[in-house]
Amino acid sequence: MTQRLSPKLSALLERFYQRDRNALARLITLVENREVSVAALMDSIYSRAGRAHVIGFTGPPGAGKSTLVSRLITRYRNLGSEVAVLAIDPSSPFSGGAVLGDRIRMADHFTDHGVYIRSLSTRGSHGGLSRAARETMLVLDAFGYDPILVETAGVGQTELAIMDLAHTTVVVTVPESGDSIQVLKAGLNEIADIFVVNKGDRPGAQRLKTELELSVKLKGSQGWRVPVLVAEAVNDKGIDEVLRAITDHRAYLATNSDSEVDKEKRLREFREILTTELSEKASRALKSEALAHVVADVKEGKVNPYEATQSILSDLAVLARMFVVPLEKTARGQW
Amino acid sequence: MTQRLSPKLSALLERFYQRDRNALARLITLVENREVSVAALMDSIYSRAGRAHVIGFTGPPGAGKSTLVSRLITRYRNLGSEVAVLAIDPSSPFSGGAVLGDRIRMADHFTDHGVYIRSLSTRGSHGGLSRAARETMLVLDAFGYDPILVETAGVGQTELAIMDLAHTTVVVTVPESGDSIQVLKAGLNEIADIFVVNKGDRPGAQRLKTELELSVKLKGSQGWRVPVLVAEAVNDKGIDEVLRAITDHRAYLATNSDSEVDKEKRLREFREILTTELSEKASRALKSEALAHVVADVKEGKVNPYEATQSILSDLAVLARMFVVPLEKTARGQW
Repeated sequence: MTQRLSPKLSALLERFYQRDRNALARLITLVENREVSVAALMDSIYSRAGRAHVIGFTGPPGAGKSTLVSRLITRYRNLGSEVAVLAIDPSSPFSGGAVLGDRIRMADHFTDHGVYIRSLSTRGSHGGLSRAARETMLVLDAFGYDPILVETAGVGQTELAIMDLAHTTVVVTVPESGDSIQVLKAGLNEIADIFVVNKGDRPGAQRLKTELELSVKLKGSQGWRVPVLVAEAVNDKGIDEVLRAITDHRAYLATNSDSEVDKEKRLREFREILTTELSEKASRALKSEALAHVVADVKEGKVNPYEATQSILSDLAVLARMFVVPLEKTARGQW
Repeated sequence: MTQRLSPKLSALLERFYQRDRNALARLITLVENREVSVAALMDSIYSRAGRAHVIGFTGPPGAGKSTLVSRLITRYRNLGSEVAVLAIDPSSPFSGGAVLGDRIRMADHFTDHGVYIRSLSTRGSHGGLSRAARETMLVLDAFGYDPILVETAGVGQTELAIMDLAHTTVVVTVPESGDSIQVLKAGLNEIADIFVVNKGDRPGAQRLKTELELSVKLKGSQGWRVPVLVAEAVNDKGIDEVLRAITDHRAYLATNSDSEVDKEKRLREFREILTTELSEKASRALKSEALAHVVADVKEGKVNPYEATQSILSDLAVLARMFVVPLEKTARGQW
């Protein structure tokens, strides 16, 4: 039932399985640019993934997430782990400049072959950022990186969806980011497995810690107790405690996984993959011969787009051409 | 080929056509909550829309967009126009509070029946905010409001997509929002038909105006010349000039519409409507009997989501059940 991979793609996958970093980079680019049938590719590597611990880092811009991640990388390298970092840049135009700075702070690790750093940006991903993030994580996981650290530069809708992909979510706050009310408003107390009050030497750090601890208590005491840690990432203080909390949470998950929660998570994942695949195939079909006539009518204003949508969705022959029959090769037909 | 509307929905539409404001509100809610076949509904009203001038207002939080919109409403009401305002709230959690304030400032117009104010928020719209915005605009347009003022509280990806729906885009900036570099970075010079430097009495206003004028000049002089206006919305200063620029731009569009640009816009609109409809039908199908078996296998981890996606998309019988055959009625089956 499933699509076969081209010989060229199979050869690339072979090199990937032999842990060739160039093949890894090429594969991520293919996934990001949707140059191949990503579903077929993912189906092939899915069974090799599922071993890595995925740790998400989120919080307001300027909270020091990149510095914290950089400190943790050093710890993981000392432990002999091979670490991947996925930095999500939603390109919020008015946040300005943070991402470049983040990359510079990460520069310590650029020459270390046991660390793989990759950025994913909204630009060009057409709202499919969380899907691209999921698939890049799967590729990194299948390659053998463990842990995978995912950093988002903000806390919008997309970022929350990406945090949903992490096993352990670390919410990084700072005294300046306002008080705990902001955290609650953003729904961050719902997703936090670990709170880190960074820049802990600044005024207000202790109060923020107390407020966050209260919000954790109010949530109830069943299951994992969310720790609220104080750190100074810039001064390398409190990092070991963060590492220990992450390790504890991983151990907790190993013995306390909730099968109902896991099932719902798989369903959400399936829904997102299916709907994205439908959208992508439909977008491609709009460029194909099969729908040229309908597209021309809509462009000329002869048919309104709702009527055209309905006529496509009620015509099985058209649906077959959109989804079942392989479409014409794209410009990069070699894949 | 197209779907028929239920008698109840037809009756609601009838009241809507008779300009019943309760029917309007009900219809927008139906569209927002996707309780009906929105494509069928939109197909019915599409021919009645297309008369209103849609004016978008965007810019950084705190630039004074709502105050400017409120001032313009007063002008339009004095001219005898019936005005609709669509306030888009992307619920960015760390922007905090702006939206409530905006609503309060708009309160002057709440009791005026010639003004219809509606908010649309990200929460619950599952990333479909720009589609919901488009369809709400169509409904307001078909009802007879003209102009329709659309306000976004930020300048992210979604907001840019929404501004794409406007005929005239007003970019509101303030001296404090940083310099023109921020505007350029955000791509706002690409979408601005009119620049307004608001809070024009503050230091830096003149410099910002000069910089924006330079960026307009650098873009080239073909077609519409983007004016850079200085206003003080709070003090009701400079508003007539903004109104005049909007009116000029509308007149410009009426005589200078570029048919190629219009065609591309219709194609983008069609692509978005088609892909959203596919996603929504697929999501509903995942809750139906037809796919219960696949869903169960995915939830149990017996089949990976990519394999399941591929098997669905290669099976015409499944596709037929997803899209062509009407699905079971939803909980609110009365529509």
